Amino acid sequence: MSDKFDAGLPYLKLHLGEEGAKLAMENAPELTQFVVEHGFADFYTDETLDQKSRKIATLASLITSASLPQFEWHTRGALASDLLTTAEVVALIQQMTIYIGYPAAYNALAAAKKVFAEFPPAA
Amino acid sequence: MSDKFDAGLPYLKLHLGEEGAKLAMENAPELTQFVVEHGFADFYTDETLDQKSRKIATLASLITSASLPQFEWHTRGALASDLLTTAEVVALIQQMTIYIGYPAAYNALAAAKKVFAEFPPAA
Amino acid sequence: MSDKFDAGLPYLKLHLGEEGAKLAMENAPELTQFVVEHGFADFYTDETLDQKSRKIATLASLITSASLPQFEWHTRGALASDLLTTAEVVALIQQMTIYIGYPAAYNALAAAKKVFAEFPPAA
Amino acid sequence: MSDKFDAGLPYLKLHLGEEGAKLAMENAPELTQFVVEHGFADFYTDETLDQKSRKIATLASLITSASLPQFEWHTRGALASDLLTTAEVVALIQQMTIYIGYPAAYNALAAAKKVFAEFPPAA
Amino acid sequence: MSDKFDAGLPYLKLHLGEEGAKLAMENAPELTQFVVEHGFADFYTDETLDQKSRKIATLASLITSASLPQFEWHTRGALASDLLTTAEVVALIQQMTIYIGYPAAYNALAAAKKVFAEFPPAA
Amino acid sequence: MSDKFDAGLPYLKLHLGEEGAKLAMENAPELTQFVVEHGFADFYTDETLDQKSRKIATLASLITSASLPQFEWHTRGALASDLLTTAEVVALIQQMTIYIGYPAAYNALAAAKKVFAEFPPAA
Repeated sequence: MSDKFDAGLPYLKLHLGEEGAKLAMENAPELTQFVVEHGFADFYTDETLDQKSRKIATLASLITSASLPQFEWHTRGALASDLLTTAEVVALIQQMTIYIGYPAAYNALAAAKKVFAEFPPAA
Repeated sequence: MSDKFDAGLPYLKLHLGEEGAKLAMENAPELTQFVVEHGFADFYTDETLDQKSRKIATLASLITSASLPQFEWHTRGALASDLLTTAEVVALIQQMTIYIGYPAAYNALAAAKKVFAEFPPAA
Repeated sequence: MSDKFDAGLPYLKLHLGEEGAKLAMENAPELTQFVVEHGFADFYTDETLDQKSRKIATLASLITSASLPQFEWHTRGALASDLLTTAEVVALIQQMTIYIGYPAAYNALAAAKKVFAEFPPAA
Repeated sequence: MSDKFDAGLPYLKLHLGEEGAKLAMENAPELTQFVVEHGFADFYTDETLDQKSRKIATLASLITSASLPQFEWHTRGALASDLLTTAEVVALIQQMTIYIGYPAAYNALAAAKKVFAEFPPAA
Repeated sequence: MSDKFDAGLPYLKLHLGEEGAKLAMENAPELTQFVVEHGFADFYTDETLDQKSRKIATLASLITSASLPQFEWHTRGALASDLLTTAEVVALIQQMTIYIGYPAAYNALAAAKKVFAEFPPAA
Repeated sequence: MSDKFDAGLPYLKLHLGEEGAKLAMENAPELTQFVVEHGFADFYTDETLDQKSRKIATLASLITSASLPQFEWHTRGALASDLLTTAEVVALIQQMTIYIGYPAAYNALAAAKKVFAEFPPAA
């Protein structure tokens, strides 16, 4: 792969989780190379916005465009990387009702709860 | 107005700017009462996400849904309230290309630049 | 024109107003022939749903898809044909906030108010 | 719960059916409290538009935004509450082809037919 | 059926494949009659754009509107009718990332790969 | 600029026209560098789909996502570069009614006709 791929890959893993990054590369290798070289290497590496802010922006966009598979992977990565708590994800979904209405929020919440179930609260 | 309106109004002003809040109340009084009582009073008052994070989420959603008039007002409020810098708004728009493509980003950037021109850099 | 065009044309005029129907035929004659022969002749002529119900469905769809030029013409036709009152149009826009959020509703209301201004209240 | 929740709840039950309202409250209690207090209490209680008209508007919006889970629940509630017949739902879906095209209409029809199957015609 | 149905039917079969056309007529006979009489008879029969160009336009639109069931049928028809190769479908999906971003492209690619698996490469 | 920028630039000029490419670089230099290095260099240079096919795909996507400013520039480039005739653009818009309905087609046609007026028919 390229230098740009190497630069972007850690951010793919940070935001999707190790498992999500691995599946993306296996299931859609070309598309994933493109999104890493471009999106992750050119944008996520820029610390004008910190990674938590970028995660919030991405989740807000994915809820708005009803891109539920990607929303699930980005939520999983957010929890695995400690970028966001489940309470923060829920607060974000609720805020989105103002801008896109309730159906999209219900669908996002159902997707988020599936992911939350993989992260049991500490004893 | 109601207690909830009073609770939400400061957040409307924070996020749209004083002028934006005033125009919203003049041009669409009923709709603005509803969005303040519900959206701003119920969601923006919740500090699970801080106001900068909520601003980023809102801008990301508005770029994604191509709601340019609202994007302009929220960008204006972000700069007036020092929630975001122009560089942060630009970084956010660029990141959105990954999730919604370039046309929406070009249109958001053109809208943002109109707003930026109202905030001349300090000497 | 065709028999189907003749069957659909009265419904185009009912829903867009005489002026709207005339402009559609002048500015986009082929597209208007297609939409009359198909959409208006095949669907609006079917009284399973009455014309007021169909008008409400169309306005709800146009608000949701942010098709503002068409929303304006259909609102104008609704008022000219006495299918809806301005209060009913406003109530519809407010209800839509549940399903698509506030930005689309604000944009629809601004469009509707431009049309309402053409229909001064009776003395 | 609140007075507004009590005011809105009958309308949630009318539009989603008893079962749909119960599931919404169980699976997404906070989001459902918000949508009842705001959307159902503030908008559905307003008889400027009757409940059949509001149902038509909601279904038209949900077809247009491709919110199929919500479309199914609102269709189920429409039939359970005798707000609409299956023939009216089909006529609505067909009309929507003019405004959003055939793919969304096919997807809505497939969802509607699953719901119709739960309401066998009287002997 | 009508003369227009007879004119459009071969194009439905060309673009969805024999099986897709059959299923559409069985599962949604009225909607399919309308789309054949109007869409296929009026537009696909017009050779201003050849059938390969029309197929590309349709797939691009379906990826953009996230109409995945229709995208699958049109991809299946494209391969069955030799209008496009799998490499061309993949190139189209990749190009779409510029205009609608990566999530829609990943979802389209996953749908396309399910269809590709039905067309094993020649020995 | 980079090697990838140099590789993609001729395709930007081919598809937007010289004037469109110049304006994009002046008004949004960073965003245009990104879209050229990535979108135009990585995708448009790949002749799996020829440039006319790519143009059709792009226009279909832009009509579907209601990205009218970009639709205008790509139409202008299509005519300036002789990739498409005005009749082909009109046929494409008409076909799109099947997939996204009439409002988007009317809006695209109005945008296209503004561009067509800049290309007077030869004497």
